[in-house]
Amino acid sequence: MPQPKLARESMTVMTEMVLPNDTNTLNNLMGGRLLHFMDIAAAIAAQKHSNRIVVTASVDNVSFAEPIRLGNIVTMKAQVTRAFSSSMEVFIEVWAEDIPAGIRVSTNSAFYTFVAVDQSGRPIEVPAVVPETDEEKERYASALRRRQLRLVLAGRMNPIDAVELREYLKVE
Amino acid sequence: MPQPKLARESMTVMTEMVLPNDTNTLNNLMGGRLLHFMDIAAAIAAQKHSNRIVVTASVDNVSFAEPIRLGNIVTMKAQVTRAFSSSMEVFIEVWAEDIPAGIRVSTNSAFYTFVAVDQSGRPIEVPAVVPETDEEKERYASALRRRQLRLVLAGRMNPIDAVELREYLKVE
Amino acid sequence: MPQPKLARESMTVMTEMVLPNDTNTLNNLMGGRLLHFMDIAAAIAAQKHSNRIVVTASVDNVSFAEPIRLGNIVTMKAQVTRAFSSSMEVFIEVWAEDIPAGIRVSTNSAFYTFVAVDQSGRPIEVPAVVPETDEEKERYASALRRRQLRLVLAGRMNPIDAVELREYLKVE
Amino acid sequence: MPQPKLARESMTVMTEMVLPNDTNTLNNLMGGRLLHFMDIAAAIAAQKHSNRIVVTASVDNVSFAEPIRLGNIVTMKAQVTRAFSSSMEVFIEVWAEDIPAGIRVSTNSAFYTFVAVDQSGRPIEVPAVVPETDEEKERYASALRRRQLRLVLAGRMNPIDAVELREYLKVE
Amino acid sequence: MPQPKLARESMTVMTEMVLPNDTNTLNNLMGGRLLHFMDIAAAIAAQKHSNRIVVTASVDNVSFAEPIRLGNIVTMKAQVTRAFSSSMEVFIEVWAEDIPAGIRVSTNSAFYTFVAVDQSGRPIEVPAVVPETDEEKERYASALRRRQLRLVLAGRMNPIDAVELREYLKVE
Amino acid sequence: MPQPKLARESMTVMTEMVLPNDTNTLNNLMGGRLLHFMDIAAAIAAQKHSNRIVVTASVDNVSFAEPIRLGNIVTMKAQVTRAFSSSMEVFIEVWAEDIPAGIRVSTNSAFYTFVAVDQSGRPIEVPAVVPETDEEKERYASALRRRQLRLVLAGRMNPIDAVELREYLKVE
Repeated sequence: MPQPKLARESMTVMTEMVLPNDTNTLNNLMGGRLLHFMDIAAAIAAQKHSNRIVVTASVDNVSFAEPIRLGNIVTMKAQVTRAFSSSMEVFIEVWAEDIPAGIRVSTNSAFYTFVAVDQSGRPIEVPAVVPETDEEKERYASALRRRQLRLVLAGRMNPIDAVELREYLKVE
Repeated sequence: MPQPKLARESMTVMTEMVLPNDTNTLNNLMGGRLLHFMDIAAAIAAQKHSNRIVVTASVDNVSFAEPIRLGNIVTMKAQVTRAFSSSMEVFIEVWAEDIPAGIRVSTNSAFYTFVAVDQSGRPIEVPAVVPETDEEKERYASALRRRQLRLVLAGRMNPIDAVELREYLKVE
Repeated sequence: MPQPKLARESMTVMTEMVLPNDTNTLNNLMGGRLLHFMDIAAAIAAQKHSNRIVVTASVDNVSFAEPIRLGNIVTMKAQVTRAFSSSMEVFIEVWAEDIPAGIRVSTNSAFYTFVAVDQSGRPIEVPAVVPETDEEKERYASALRRRQLRLVLAGRMNPIDAVELREYLKVE
Repeated sequence: MPQPKLARESMTVMTEMVLPNDTNTLNNLMGGRLLHFMDIAAAIAAQKHSNRIVVTASVDNVSFAEPIRLGNIVTMKAQVTRAFSSSMEVFIEVWAEDIPAGIRVSTNSAFYTFVAVDQSGRPIEVPAVVPETDEEKERYASALRRRQLRLVLAGRMNPIDAVELREYLKVE
Repeated sequence: MPQPKLARESMTVMTEMVLPNDTNTLNNLMGGRLLHFMDIAAAIAAQKHSNRIVVTASVDNVSFAEPIRLGNIVTMKAQVTRAFSSSMEVFIEVWAEDIPAGIRVSTNSAFYTFVAVDQSGRPIEVPAVVPETDEEKERYASALRRRQLRLVLAGRMNPIDAVELREYLKVE
Repeated sequence: MPQPKLARESMTVMTEMVLPNDTNTLNNLMGGRLLHFMDIAAAIAAQKHSNRIVVTASVDNVSFAEPIRLGNIVTMKAQVTRAFSSSMEVFIEVWAEDIPAGIRVSTNSAFYTFVAVDQSGRPIEVPAVVPETDEEKERYASALRRRQLRLVLAGRMNPIDAVELREYLKVE
């Protein structure tokens, strides 16, 4: 079994400039194009953690609160939160900057899940994740209930068995 | 207030051929690229329902079970399920075909949410959705608990108030 | 020899959103980009009919009457009309929609021809086409004179032998 | 009325390298992508002749005889043949080279038609074309029957009136 | 005159995954595509320093020693070294990683120069750069002779006046 | 050893239309995109001279004096100047045209260097270059000092040994 690795060893920063073909008729970045950018940034983080080829297994709910404009700079920070056998959850945060206007806003965050595979596409075990900071520890712990939610939504877990998820939804 | 419209009036079929730049080193369609395709197909359905410019508000959990290969034909079917004031939920299903091999598999489904906006980007009310078939009615009804889940995940609703969602998670 | 197939079994619907890079300085879809979209849609129809890899053999005269604008939705419907040994003629119709403006216009139609090939690129026989509707029957019949015109224009048939074509041009 | 111009003043050479995304699963350039390249080369020739913005009006029958491979160099030569009021016919020839293998083949030729327009998209008169070489003169003369064929195919001319076209098809 | 800023305030990290269309027939990243990536990363650093729209003024000699493979991750680090009135020199370093193979190599470095402009494209003064580390100080000092080399090569300075450059070339 | 070849046998003309995705927020062609175009044009010239696969080894200082606008036609002329064993220097000139406005300006020139390689990427000797015109002879002669500058900048030659370069910088 592979050696555990620190969460921050997978840290990946990716920057993109919003080009005309990425935008809708309001000159704002299209949501699907941002999901595409985020998938690449998160995949690189999962590659760094596992030193394997990785394939996207799922993306959790993503909301798009802030419009991102043509010419803006999009910065993404991705880091593995926790591993489950051959799969890894990656947390990714997105900022958009209009640099000439001196404006930088946090626009999104999301959890993507990847599976490490060998050259023939078969799943292969990955290192455990060692969280260090409080934030990393919180995301490590809550990864369990997000995993339960994914399984319930995919019809692969009975809600009755999603203990952490139900606990989370019962009391806030 | 705009006239209600039938769910099926928004039905949109979109087809894409998987090109080299859409694939990873295993020659499979990258997850983020598929999310990008799905966003465009779903946006067209939301446009058809509202006759407005629409912007992506969120995408719900999407899982990627089946690899889609270079040269495959990806077919997407998108249809509005329910409207809430200025927002619309769109259900989208994806199939991949290797036509020379005679293989066609269902690969994904997802719920995207869009907001209709005017030329200055301000939200604007959309028609109610009238479901006709049993499937359309089921998706219309369950749209409520998916909306609650989105709001809870975005920290904009207390889980205590997500009545339909909690009901759904208690018994299966 | 492969089993004949119904014309409608090859029916393919493809939808594209006109993005900035598809347009000229008047913000209209460039003709060559539309020919590219149409080729892909028609190739999928030919693939469906033959269950083979297909390569474009020719495109007949296409005229571009209506400008298609940035942000418009382009819908293409393609269907095989008739097969000649290893080649298939595909009829394709194009509509453009400005959905927020509620405008949908028929913009083009064209005939593309494809050859079915095996993995080494050698031509291979395809099923005969069975037309059902009146339109399908008319296009099946007229495929003969379009084929003669292609051969005459390519210098591979003496106009004297293009019986159906000359008949068509003599009386209207 | 604008001053006539020599045919060769519009001569345009365009070169493209075939990249992975331009190819099908046999690693050959897709027909639609080549039509797209040709449209741009021909449009530049029409721009040079008219010193105007131009829009594609039609493309005549194009056949694809030779496969063009990934990594090949595609060279296109385009030149205006004749003008009719605001429209120009452009002849375009295509060669493909596998330079390391020392192979260069003529692969295609086609006639595209463009209309010169002003900033609001209204047709505007263009200079007459003055052919000099025998080839230019032959293409200038035959432009008439190609124009008749386009009008007949578009249902805008009765075959009875297509004098030159009928003459051409009767005797070779 | 704008307030001086620290060199490191402009620090920009950009990450790209090498996709099929970025590669030549040996499956290596094409040099021109890398120059394109580097230009965007360097432009973002210059934007951060100046809070202005910036346009590329020049790129100094770049050599490509190491092939970068399809699927590799390219990481670029760009930082402003020195400003001269409205122009800024940016130093940019490039690494390529084959993560599954655990290989990371330094592949390139380059100096790009940008000019800050206002909305009508007129040059506009930028803050002076304050170097802190030894490396930053060395690059700040040597910026002078690189600027002289650029001016000499562009025929805008007599080599006689390129004092620092000639000094540098006299003794090593 | 391969037979020497004339410089002009490698002459390559490439034309590109500036599309929206090639431009910055001022609607001007981005410098990095132009470097990408120029690399492809120069690579084709080096391929023609060597009849080999070629990889970019370096680009010399390039300055960008003139903005090139959206919709402009970019014409590049590239030709090999001199060969050194397995490497070739290519001179490339760029013009931009706003054809409707009747404006054509010389915007750039540059020297790119390529190495000819075999299928496994190993360097392989190329033909010597035979210059004919005065310009070709001047560029052939000066190739020596540009090569010395490249080696000095790459830290692979002691400035003391760059005889021609030092001669050039001492007196004009």
